[in-house]
Amino acid sequence: MSSPGNPPVTNNPRVSDLGERALIERIRRRVPAAPRELLVGIGDDAAVAVPDRGALQVLTTDALVEGIHFDRRFSTPSDIGFKALAVNVSDVASMGGAPRFALLSLMLPAGITQEDVDGLLDGLLELAGETRVHLAGGNITRSPGPLVVDVTVVGSVKPRKILTRSGARPGDVLYVTGMLGAAAAGLGWLQARADTPLRDSVIARPSDPAMADCVARYCRPGPRARIGALLGRTRAASACMDLSDGLADAVTQLAAASGTGATIDAALLPLHPAARDWFAAAGDDAVSACVAGGDDYELLFAVPRRTRSRLRGVIQESRGVSITRIGELTPGGSVALARAGRLETLPPGFVHF
Amino acid sequence: MSSPGNPPVTNNPRVSDLGERALIERIRRRVPAAPRELLVGIGDDAAVAVPDRGALQVLTTDALVEGIHFDRRFSTPSDIGFKALAVNVSDVASMGGAPRFALLSLMLPAGITQEDVDGLLDGLLELAGETRVHLAGGNITRSPGPLVVDVTVVGSVKPRKILTRSGARPGDVLYVTGMLGAAAAGLGWLQARADTPLRDSVIARPSDPAMADCVARYCRPGPRARIGALLGRTRAASACMDLSDGLADAVTQLAAASGTGATIDAALLPLHPAARDWFAAAGDDAVSACVAGGDDYELLFAVPRRTRSRLRGVIQESRGVSITRIGELTPGGSVALARAGRLETLPPGFVHF
Repeated sequence: MSSPGNPPVTNNPRVSDLGERALIERIRRRVPAAPRELLVGIGDDAAVAVPDRGALQVLTTDALVEGIHFDRRFSTPSDIGFKALAVNVSDVASMGGAPRFALLSLMLPAGITQEDVDGLLDGLLELAGETRVHLAGGNITRSPGPLVVDVTVVGSVKPRKILTRSGARPGDVLYVTGMLGAAAAGLGWLQARADTPLRDSVIARPSDPAMADCVARYCRPGPRARIGALLGRTRAASACMDLSDGLADAVTQLAAASGTGATIDAALLPLHPAARDWFAAAGDDAVSACVAGGDDYELLFAVPRRTRSRLRGVIQESRGVSITRIGELTPGGSVALARAGRLETLPPGFVHF
Repeated sequence: MSSPGNPPVTNNPRVSDLGERALIERIRRRVPAAPRELLVGIGDDAAVAVPDRGALQVLTTDALVEGIHFDRRFSTPSDIGFKALAVNVSDVASMGGAPRFALLSLMLPAGITQEDVDGLLDGLLELAGETRVHLAGGNITRSPGPLVVDVTVVGSVKPRKILTRSGARPGDVLYVTGMLGAAAAGLGWLQARADTPLRDSVIARPSDPAMADCVARYCRPGPRARIGALLGRTRAASACMDLSDGLADAVTQLAAASGTGATIDAALLPLHPAARDWFAAAGDDAVSACVAGGDDYELLFAVPRRTRSRLRGVIQESRGVSITRIGELTPGGSVALARAGRLETLPPGFVHF
């Protein structure tokens, strides 16, 4: 994707010269062979699929909008395509489901090139391959403004294995996958470089591997598809949601939906080391910044005492993704952060409006 | 939706003052009680539904983008919400399916008001009620540019009752629902008034009822949900698609997908009378204009000789929507319009890029 003032090179034609039909055909050819369950894929008025036997449908949609959710100076087309699918796979995982099919609704500004669209598809199809999602259809239209990548994912979950936000009870222990604050620190690092003159259209990644990990977590978050499906299948968790808007927001939402309060222990929080250092160097309270920062796409979940042995099985299968106890749900309605023997209010999460 | 230079009145707060959570809660309260099959609706990370027993999933998504698909001077918020669902219901109908659940992905520009969003929901929920679709979830985000209303519809269809574009054979007779050219003439009428000073933010509808019908067909197209489902259920049709991009485009696509040619008889085409007059008055060839005009959202379908008796049953159940024979599929690969004893090439359909 070319930045403003950085016109596409002539041997990389604009999508507007290619035409909608040719573009759809180009995408169709890049999609791997359809699984048997997909009876009608790209190219008809709608896709038709055989549902998983005995399973429920999980339905979610989430859009990435240029200027709101991504900046073409920060993210490559491949990053954008990857993340557009990731945020939806994350939603399905947080319900305990397995993603199956994706629909891609693309809104393309005039200057976009074939190479840009190919890049978007590269990223989306890479994650689709990793998470066994098949691109079943979608829609392409022009945009008079931003690039928009809106993805719908249809997944499946067995009855009685659904993880909602509302199933937890006081006394259930709260856990989180992975590390906190990485995406917020990564975005902060990119924003600090956004005003410097750029040689390329996308800012070069940090040379420090730990900070590069933070930038990658912002630009290309791997959703916790496997752990979400395991939590559902084993019925280890009583409630679950993802950290799209940060941990503080997720704890507040999950507790409210379950009719409980919550206490998070600051000493237990798995802050990303580079994120902690980044916020501390900026003079911010690292705990608050990591807890408030959005875009982590980790999972927050509650585990009742009686299913704790099932959680051990999930941890054994988690393939290197850490699962950390961070606090517990309480009978009261308040949500607090315990730090140095005192209770603080949780900082507000990421606000969209 | 206020037009540019027409700021919202102060007692109609902007959505940006309301906040995302409050807006979602406002929408949730307006949605009718969930059917039993919807286990998790608006408010969790994803929706969860029980699939129809023994049915296949039909999946489609289509976006309406301000400045591309609608103009706030032409369409009320309610029109936009109605049409955003209609175009997706039309896609499901054209597969022979029944729509069941919708997801709504909204991208809202800064100036949008609560009243605007309420209007969008009014229109969407009106058609949802008519077509028995339940709004199961979605996503709301800011837009730095146009208003975008992206809808996904999940429907169901019984195995062996799917209508694709590719099932027709030479000799099958082509039919179309409703009348042609109405939406294109309605849009033309609105565009002719777009440069005149407006007293209100939305152009007043034509006083002539026939032209008002054309404008309504453009702004608020009722999809042929019932006829599509009947065509699937009775197995009367061998192939079907909707006229989102006009009849000429649909005939070309359906014939190509089925590996046939097609001949359309100009004398049989059910041109909308007001559309025919509108294009003739403008000095255009009315047949070509009505055949090329997009946005009609009627259904084109092919009927083999052996299932013609089933079609009579569909016509009896079509509740006043006309079904007209317009031509047939041919063994050759060419698509032609027969007029006054001569074969012409079909005009190209609506082009998106």
